[in-house]
Formats: sequence, C-alpha cells, structure tokens
Amino acid sequence: MRSLLLLAVAAIAMGAAPPKKLLTPNDIVAGAPAGDWRTIDPDNLLVMDLAKGGRIVVQLAPDFAPVHVANVKALARGNYWDGATIYRLQDNYVAQWGLNESDKPWPAGVTAKPPAEYTRPLNGLSVKALGFADPYAPGTGFWQGWPVAYSPKAGWANLAHCYASVGVGRDLAPDTGTGGELYAVIGQAPRQLDRNIALVGRVVEGMDRLSSLPRGPAPMGFYPDKAQYVAIAKIRLASDMPAAERPSYEYLDTDSPSFARYLQVKANRHDDFYQMPAGGVDLCNVNVPVRKKA
Amino acid sequence: MRSLLLLAVAAIAMGAAPPKKLLTPNDIVAGAPAGDWRTIDPDNLLVMDLAKGGRIVVQLAPDFAPVHVANVKALARGNYWDGATIYRLQDNYVAQWGLNESDKPWPAGVTAKPPAEYTRPLNGLSVKALGFADPYAPGTGFWQGWPVAYSPKAGWANLAHCYASVGVGRDLAPDTGTGGELYAVIGQAPRQLDRNIALVGRVVEGMDRLSSLPRGPAPMGFYPDKAQYVAIAKIRLASDMPAAERPSYEYLDTDSPSFARYLQVKANRHDDFYQMPAGGVDLCNVNVPVRKKA
Repeated sequence: MRSLLLLAVAAIAMGAAPPKKLLTPNDIVAGAPAGDWRTIDPDNLLVMDLAKGGRIVVQLAPDFAPVHVANVKALARGNYWDGATIYRLQDNYVAQWGLNESDKPWPAGVTAKPPAEYTRPLNGLSVKALGFADPYAPGTGFWQGWPVAYSPKAGWANLAHCYASVGVGRDLAPDTGTGGELYAVIGQAPRQLDRNIALVGRVVEGMDRLSSLPRGPAPMGFYPDKAQYVAIAKIRLASDMPAAERPSYEYLDTDSPSFARYLQVKANRHDDFYQMPAGGVDLCNVNVPVRKKA
Repeated sequence: MRSLLLLAVAAIAMGAAPPKKLLTPNDIVAGAPAGDWRTIDPDNLLVMDLAKGGRIVVQLAPDFAPVHVANVKALARGNYWDGATIYRLQDNYVAQWGLNESDKPWPAGVTAKPPAEYTRPLNGLSVKALGFADPYAPGTGFWQGWPVAYSPKAGWANLAHCYASVGVGRDLAPDTGTGGELYAVIGQAPRQLDRNIALVGRVVEGMDRLSSLPRGPAPMGFYPDKAQYVAIAKIRLASDMPAAERPSYEYLDTDSPSFARYLQVKANRHDDFYQMPAGGVDLCNVNVPVRKKA
C-alpha cells in the first residue's frame, strides 16, 4: 500500500491527474445521488423490539403476498404478538419467531386461511433482468428493490429466498400459514423454498442481532427449553409509531444508474483486492443496498 | 397429517404394501450404507478449542492449496496460535481468527510467501459434475467430498467459497497470506472470492458456535475492543492428539450411489412439505454430508 500511495502523491505533485481509483460496490453506494434512493413506506415496515435490547425491522412486500402481508399488519395492529418469542434458530437456515403453538384467537382483519401466495403473475412487474445463470429459475432480476425469480414462458414470478428474506411458517398443505409465525433466512439462500411458501418481506435492520443468537440444539433448531426463548417486547408497524420515534429506511432504486453500476462491479470486482473478476454474480449475492435515513 | 396416517394404517391392515414415503435428503443420508462413507484423515483435521467452551473442527484440503495447508499444519505443530483469538465477525460474510497484527516469528516448516494457490489444474481431478447452471464458473461439481468450480476449456479448478469454507486471510497482492489468519464463511456464498484467495478447507464441526458469535461493530466486522476478542485455548491437528481424545469424521462419498440420490432429491424436493420441486440446486446449497464417527 505504501508505495502505491507514494506514487499517487508524486503524480499529483507533478500536475498529472491522480490515478483513477477502481471502485468497490460500497464506493458506488456511498456515491449514489439522493435521487437514486427510494424511501420505504412506513406502513410497510414492521418494527420488532427485543426485550433485552436490539431491534429487527422488516420491510413488507404487499405486491408479492398481499393477503399474508395484510395479515401481518393486522396481527401487529391487533397486538397479537404480545408475549411472542424467537424460539427457533437452525444454523445456515432460519430464525423463527411468533407465538409458537398458540391458540390465541386471530385479531380483527386476519384471514385465517390465505391463498397460497407462493408466486404471482410476472405480468405487471417490469423486472430488471440480472442476466446471469441461475440454477433455480429461467430468469432472475430486480423489481422495486426486491430480488425476483421468474419464468417468462410460464408467466410466474416470486420473491427469492435470500439471506434476510422473511416468510410465513406453515404446516403441510393445504395450510398456507396465517402469519403468526415468521422466519428469516440466516444462511445460504434456501431457494428450494421458492414457490413453496409465502415470503412477505426482508429484514432491513438487525440481521446481525438475529443471526448471532444461539442456535437451538433440538431438531430443526428449536430451543427445547422455554427459558432459552428470546423474548420480544413489541412488534409494531412504523406507521403506528409516534413520528419522532419512527425509523425510516431507503433502498437504492434498482432501475437507477447507480444500481446498474453497483451490479456491474458486484459481478466484476476489479478493486485492489481482486485479481480475477468473477464475470457473474448470484441473485442472492447482490444484496440490494438499504440504509437508514437520518 | 392425521388423515394421511390413518390411510396408511388402513392399507397395512388390508395387507397392501404401505404407501411409499417420499424421501428427504436427511432420510437418504440416514439410510446410506457404511460403504458410502469415507473417513477423514486425522492429519487433515484442525481442532480449535475455544477458551470458554466450544470446538470448531476444520477439514483441510491439501489437494487444492498444498503449501498453504502445509503452513497451517506447521503453525499448529509449532504452537504458533498460542494466544490467538477470533477477532472479526462480519455479518453474512466471514468469521476470522488467528494472531491479528502479530510479529511473532513463523515456526519451522512455514513458507513465509506461498505461491498464489487460488486455482489448481483441473487435470487430475475427476469431478462429478453437478449439472446445473452457475453464475460464477462454466462447470461445478464435487471431488472427494469438496464443492469444486472449474473451467474445462481453461483447465482450472478451485474449491468454491461456500458456507463453512475456510480460507487464508491475505493483504493486497503480491501477498498471498501465510496461514496465520484464517476465516470461515458464515453467510451467503461469497463466490466472488473464488480464484482470488487460497481456500484451505471447511468447518466440519462447530459452525453453529462460530456463526452465533456477536458481529463486530467496527468496519468489516472487526471487534474494536480487545475485550470482545474470543479467546482460543488451543489449535491442534487431530493426528497430534492422544488417540482416545481424537475426534473422527466421515463424509458421504460424492461418487457413491447415496450421494447421487441425495443430489437428485436436493434438486427436486418432493417430500410432504414441498409442492413445487426446484429442478435445480446451487453448488453451495448442496452441503456434502459430513458426520462425526462414534
């Protein structure tokens, strides 16, 4: 590093243009103009505060699972999750929370048996194609910040199960899950779940908190002892919080020039550390930039 | 579930064959005959015991990075890692350990500047092709239990950066990393690192322990305060441990009929929970079965 820096200083001193820095994905995100960011609707932010500290915020995706998302909102507004816990962490798979094995009645506005919102019509989504091979779907890309898999021929589209994706736990079919139990992906993208379960969004804050909880020792990562359960203080929609307390987030518009540059560099790292650009990137390794607004 | 079980019981009572259970990947692993498993050489097992409890075991891959692996063995045998810590956890990326910023001299047998063992010749590896698209390499598959990416045309092969893969931290080129600082992948496969860094193996025990450590709050996941460092009690090769204490592991032979069935079902889940088999699987979502031997 030292010799490189010295060369750069020498070039500037001689009046030459400084050597062009090869940008990292983070550089591109940091330099993206304000106009390339989109604020997330506070009515689509589910804010989960843990009793012992830590906040996990989920951005909801009503365009992909409208009935399940409406349920999640009704559950939050109806205080259904009072007393809820995180009760399952299966390593390299999911963290799961809610009211495990509860017989609490559903609050008003909850559809007890939603339709199987595992895919939606591709029609109506102008997906920006990623353009690299995918082992799970004929097409992949992005729509309004979401990673999407799709089939142009069959006409379906689905949110992809990536790290931080949030879905609705369900029993065997015909059950589709009501929304009282949610999970987030904490490992390698379990894309085999795509088209088999309703995804309702993704974690935009607090993945580090969720993913560093102890794994459950029972089969499938359940905590066998209720003393191990991680208590949730409250789950609210940001839109129901006092304005002064309400957190706000924005994502990099996946149709913006900044995102196109970000994608280009994610697939072709040529900054100092890299010697061999990959020439491709996996849908779930793109990680659409999301950040907290001041 | 209840009605399905009742049907099965009725069929057996009538003397008919019970309905065939649709196997999960775990069912196939549990049923694999002893002859389909291969014992891991104890000379290729690095056993890391944490001071506050917990063991992380790494299977080394001398066929992919022989000089780096020889270094790791020499570092273990030379007690280089006395006083080492886990000092970095970057969420959805890596856990890193060793002697951070140490000026301790290398023990005997360590090559201070190994060659860039980021790829090896494909020639000599009879890779069992996975057969599904990959965004990072023209070919992917398995060789002696390892997930491998390769180019038949260019003739290179490399270990793939998957969840639990272990690599050698390095500075900018021409540095290739000596082996004193190692990292393990704790999130979505960072395949952009393939062919840019030396992988020396994978964690076969203790990923749950490693991945549930607190993420570091400093840039790149470093712990800013040394009080947060996770102390390592000792790092030894299994072959240097007393026979009675030595742990032993075996992997499912990736050329075996059981592995072929496992792969088939991983790519086409048709057991009770799944309604829509994917028809493919990502190299890093296969997870070659490895288990402890009694």
